Amino acid sequence: MDTLVTNGTLLTMRGERLGIVDGDSPARETGEGGGAVAVDDGRISYVGPAAEGPDPGDAEEVVDAEGGVVMPGLVNAHTHMAHTLLRGGAQDVPEIEWMNRALGPLSAHADEADRVAGARLGVLEAVRAGATTICEYAGEVGTLVEEVYQPLGVDVVAVETINEVPDERGDLGPRELYPFDREQGETALARADRLFERFGDDPLVTPAYGPQALDMVSPELLQTVQQHAHERGAKLHLHTAQGERESIQIEERYGAEESTVSVLDDLGIVDDSLVAVHCHGATPAERRRLAEGGAAMLGCPSSIAAIDGIVPPVAEFREYDAPVGIGTDQAPGPGHHSMVREARTAATLSKVERTDPTALTAPEALRLATVGGAEALGIDDEVGTLEEGTRADLLVVETDQLSTAPAVESPLHTAVPNLVYSTTGREVRDVFVAGEPVLRDGAFVDADPEAAVAEATERARALYERASEDWRAADSELVAAVDDGWL
Amino acid sequence: MDTLVTNGTLLTMRGERLGIVDGDSPARETGEGGGAVAVDDGRISYVGPAAEGPDPGDAEEVVDAEGGVVMPGLVNAHTHMAHTLLRGGAQDVPEIEWMNRALGPLSAHADEADRVAGARLGVLEAVRAGATTICEYAGEVGTLVEEVYQPLGVDVVAVETINEVPDERGDLGPRELYPFDREQGETALARADRLFERFGDDPLVTPAYGPQALDMVSPELLQTVQQHAHERGAKLHLHTAQGERESIQIEERYGAEESTVSVLDDLGIVDDSLVAVHCHGATPAERRRLAEGGAAMLGCPSSIAAIDGIVPPVAEFREYDAPVGIGTDQAPGPGHHSMVREARTAATLSKVERTDPTALTAPEALRLATVGGAEALGIDDEVGTLEEGTRADLLVVETDQLSTAPAVESPLHTAVPNLVYSTTGREVRDVFVAGEPVLRDGAFVDADPEAAVAEATERARALYERASEDWRAADSELVAAVDDGWL
Repeated sequence: MDTLVTNGTLLTMRGERLGIVDGDSPARETGEGGGAVAVDDGRISYVGPAAEGPDPGDAEEVVDAEGGVVMPGLVNAHTHMAHTLLRGGAQDVPEIEWMNRALGPLSAHADEADRVAGARLGVLEAVRAGATTICEYAGEVGTLVEEVYQPLGVDVVAVETINEVPDERGDLGPRELYPFDREQGETALARADRLFERFGDDPLVTPAYGPQALDMVSPELLQTVQQHAHERGAKLHLHTAQGERESIQIEERYGAEESTVSVLDDLGIVDDSLVAVHCHGATPAERRRLAEGGAAMLGCPSSIAAIDGIVPPVAEFREYDAPVGIGTDQAPGPGHHSMVREARTAATLSKVERTDPTALTAPEALRLATVGGAEALGIDDEVGTLEEGTRADLLVVETDQLSTAPAVESPLHTAVPNLVYSTTGREVRDVFVAGEPVLRDGAFVDADPEAAVAEATERARALYERASEDWRAADSELVAAVDDGWL
Repeated sequence: MDTLVTNGTLLTMRGERLGIVDGDSPARETGEGGGAVAVDDGRISYVGPAAEGPDPGDAEEVVDAEGGVVMPGLVNAHTHMAHTLLRGGAQDVPEIEWMNRALGPLSAHADEADRVAGARLGVLEAVRAGATTICEYAGEVGTLVEEVYQPLGVDVVAVETINEVPDERGDLGPRELYPFDREQGETALARADRLFERFGDDPLVTPAYGPQALDMVSPELLQTVQQHAHERGAKLHLHTAQGERESIQIEERYGAEESTVSVLDDLGIVDDSLVAVHCHGATPAERRRLAEGGAAMLGCPSSIAAIDGIVPPVAEFREYDAPVGIGTDQAPGPGHHSMVREARTAATLSKVERTDPTALTAPEALRLATVGGAEALGIDDEVGTLEEGTRADLLVVETDQLSTAPAVESPLHTAVPNLVYSTTGREVRDVFVAGEPVLRDGAFVDADPEAAVAEATERARALYERASEDWRAADSELVAAVDDGWL
């Protein structure tokens, strides 16, 4: 046995609930109780009460999780990590300004090294707060996999963006149809196809197809992408029903009676390879149709609240029995990549959306942030739970800190709500991915966070300097805020 | 000069905006630029560009704030810290269950030592995340002041709860009028009066009167309390229009046409001594009336979202030009006492309440969490801003961390949105109150957080054990959640 993590309260996420294993309380006080997880060759070989588990003497390393919770690594199910370089550069502006007048004038000046530096910053932030699986959605995503994810040794679902709309569409009016460049789309599709060979022997990399949104790809290409996804047993991640600009394009292209979901349905895209992201612009009936058609759903509560002022229908997705995950999307706007904060935000926003404090409870939010995301990404046979035979992606989270105490096991486990509603993210003590330590005692084993911060800061300062004139000319509300002394 | 905090970006909150002082950027790179704050005898003697300020050689201690922001200490404007012992014990339940069937069966078993241990845990959590002023609302609040706040050396607005409803009201139906026990109320009022003598020579303690809510005090006593407040130039903190149970009592007692605000108005309670807390059960016209009458307003976004599924009208309060602050209320439900998270929650919830991503921007939220709270509590001549002559309550917050980087100063200060939307709270490096260090390099100078956590945990476990039978008998939804494997 390589590693035995013992003496903590386990949240295994097995079954339909949290799968709590806390062993025998009196035994815990002797330091020999609680639950235990054994790891062999990167996989879990035992989960259960410590007293019934393997002998600690047989383990090469024993990790004492006393005063803590042992749980599956968090699954950040939808991100664009490269934008982390622009954190703080686009928020608090009208939705119509966010992309084209706030973020766009900055991101247009980002080069590949900037994107890598931004992604490294965001991924380290996410892992520091307990993420072990990140779904990265990017153009030329393979570069980020090689430069950021593989060196760190965390799981990545690598989604290659496929988009047929040339970049210069900013000049178009809202009712002018976006032109499509089929060659651009085919090039991106070929890049996506190559991911499967390029990363075929890395079990931590799961490639997927990312047709960006129905307004940005032609129906023909979308169907071709689906065919490629089916051939490889891969997922097709699609930003779905993102809002007004998309719905105008759909009406203009497909007719006034049509919507994103109706067109996807007609095209045969709604099946169990589809991962529908956001969906706040769809009707409840349409969302139910997606779920009944087999699609998984991903919500990004902080992001959609920050950018659109909308609560994504995460609580509703769960009612359709669809696989549902949550993600932090991108840093400009919501600000962060901490999945414990995203779970809190999902729960809090769901409650006010429904005027119901019982909407999306803490334990339900914890499932979204672990097994829910894994199911939605189609990798729940490997990650998202603590079960014998699955990949040993797990965390030790201290629940005896100022921000999380007091932890009581009876008559209820207060650590469960406290993980969601009160952790800062810094209580994550240890992170293991495939049994390998990535974070121990709050410090990265191999990565250098200070260097990552320094490089990102230097690159961000240079980028803002290059972009400053364009940024001012785009004249978002942020420009006036700076001139008025708010920023 | 006792202390010079130099070489950081200052957010002074002077004037109507953020009062940003970042000095000369090229000079910063030499380590001799940025802004500086000088402290003499606990008060601020200089705020401005470091290059124009006092000579560091004249300071007994120089605090280098490079890579960070220097700002006023955060003001947590409404809390019941003793309940922190029960964090994780009451959340995700219907509003009607929260007090009587989830929190109540636990809190009934708390003794004074439990309340002190809970308050100590909550206050240390709050200060670790940057609070220097906490408004504590409690019965026998003087005990908490002496046992918790004075030993730690932070500012406290000590509000004595005044309540005429005997504790056994749990048996009453919702339309049965609460009985009033005038003697109980007078005793509490006398206790409040005594705070002014008891803490008269501690400038960090600001006593205030806390008639609990209009349904829990008689009109005669409320008017007497107001008179005492006026005589002492003190504030009268009143939970105002908290929801349906209150409005039913008001209708039964004062007539079907009456509301909390109409009765307060008739009684002459609406003036500039009134601090109206919550107000989500009032109409916009009533809230405007409170503001026009001179009242200050406090909102607790995390708490009211968690307990009621409602967004408190914080963004609306600001439109009335009332003094407005925010607070974390109590831990069971919202989970926490971190004011940076409360600022984020306030902004995020305001955006979805209005379907407007520009509602309550990050810099506006920072003002609520500092000078806004100070104004609402009536202590803005002393705290909430960095100005010459005010009390030296200030923070150094690192903005070069994984969770906050990259910090760019031009063309906008990304640290401002990042403080609100992405800090975990653990980036607070130094906390000074009245010029005295409370936290340095992330460690408490005098307090022992591990001991506080250990005591709170031991007491919580014993309390839950005592309370377990009552808690199960009260049969909130949490009991079924435990039995089903969710908690």
